[in-house]
Amino acid sequence: MTENIRIVLVNTSHPGNIGGAARAMKNMGLSKLVLVSPKVFPSEEAVSRASGASDLLDSAVVVDTLEEAISDCQLVIGTSARERHIPWPLLDPRESAELTYKEGLETAFVFGREDRGLTNEELQRCHYHVHIPSVEAFSSLNLATAVQVIAYELRMKLLSLGDSPIVQSKWDVPAATSEQMDHMLEHLENVLGEIEFLDPKAPRQVMTRFRRLYQRAQMDQQEMGMLRGVLTAIEKQCR
Amino acid sequence: MTENIRIVLVNTSHPGNIGGAARAMKNMGLSKLVLVSPKVFPSEEAVSRASGASDLLDSAVVVDTLEEAISDCQLVIGTSARERHIPWPLLDPRESAELTYKEGLETAFVFGREDRGLTNEELQRCHYHVHIPSVEAFSSLNLATAVQVIAYELRMKLLSLGDSPIVQSKWDVPAATSEQMDHMLEHLENVLGEIEFLDPKAPRQVMTRFRRLYQRAQMDQQEMGMLRGVLTAIEKQCR
Repeated sequence: MTENIRIVLVNTSHPGNIGGAARAMKNMGLSKLVLVSPKVFPSEEAVSRASGASDLLDSAVVVDTLEEAISDCQLVIGTSARERHIPWPLLDPRESAELTYKEGLETAFVFGREDRGLTNEELQRCHYHVHIPSVEAFSSLNLATAVQVIAYELRMKLLSLGDSPIVQSKWDVPAATSEQMDHMLEHLENVLGEIEFLDPKAPRQVMTRFRRLYQRAQMDQQEMGMLRGVLTAIEKQCR
Repeated sequence: MTENIRIVLVNTSHPGNIGGAARAMKNMGLSKLVLVSPKVFPSEEAVSRASGASDLLDSAVVVDTLEEAISDCQLVIGTSARERHIPWPLLDPRESAELTYKEGLETAFVFGREDRGLTNEELQRCHYHVHIPSVEAFSSLNLATAVQVIAYELRMKLLSLGDSPIVQSKWDVPAATSEQMDHMLEHLENVLGEIEFLDPKAPRQVMTRFRRLYQRAQMDQQEMGMLRGVLTAIEKQCR
């Protein structure tokens, strides 16, 4: 029932936090851990802090980039402590758990660095941001306890579903993956250049807004194909 | 609003956990920490793990017995991982937070030793037990993350009472109107005709899918303007 959920830790500095996160996950019945360029891994300290959850460390997938970590995910939720310049759909942990089990999509929860969290670019790859409602004056949670809160809410939601299977959304087409989204946005950026829509002085802002818009819609694969078709048709006509 | 709540840690072995608990408390707006016969305190490791919450360590009350720690409390809730011989009123973390704020009583949450939790005698001093719903096969949470879960639920409950609402990310642009959506979709349909994307045999289905997609995203007016700009740019290029 939790196979569709992965916890992604980006550029973790302290191996103890990786171990603590693994323990928190296993306590709450989660098993899929993905590490994006951890500073130190594997590590004795991680095993020690995992305190019996070292099987999750053994099976952890280590990758170089966030893109790889989430390429096949249909729902990506990034943890964020701060307000961003461009507002993004924002959930609290409970809402994020509801969404995860409502749709049953291949889902990633992405946690950033201990000191700086996720970069703006990383956050923009997420469909939603989740904010653990800490007090403003002291808002930065320890990484493992942040994982604990999210994993706890996922567990509470799962238990509230009882024995009833996940209510699959009745959408008739599978949700698009992050990789498909990336390809479509690249295609879009090229076309916007060709039709001279993109302001060369500020291309990123426009593309960020397009990413936000299309991710927010949680596009399905047919819609994705339709947009790609439109882009190809524009290219043909404009040459 | 949280002055009536104290966190009581009984016989903690690892000072790092005391620091971690202090940090979790401060993140969630709690400030009263009571330590019953900690093995090592004060300690550099506790300060280090508190990571900015050392003021809670400085003001922590250290006592010899649980009785002293809770003597003036009206509601005592003890954390328990196991089923006990004598059933006790059992809450989940969410229910325990509801109870705490419902009554406004002087309340203690009591956390046991890292390895053995609370003794039966200690648990029997509690009005209620609270169980964090871990998986049975791996049920023992790290002490600081257990404090985090309870403190998080207290915070969620407090915020739901409206005392200091969660700072919602404020969308910076007004939502688009239905009329703006209709105009954009008309514009889109014209352009899709011009670039010969629309199948004349089944134009409606495509436009229906576009409407569904863009409505689902609940577009704002800036995004709407951006899309209109793209459509206009395509028209210019393709003539």
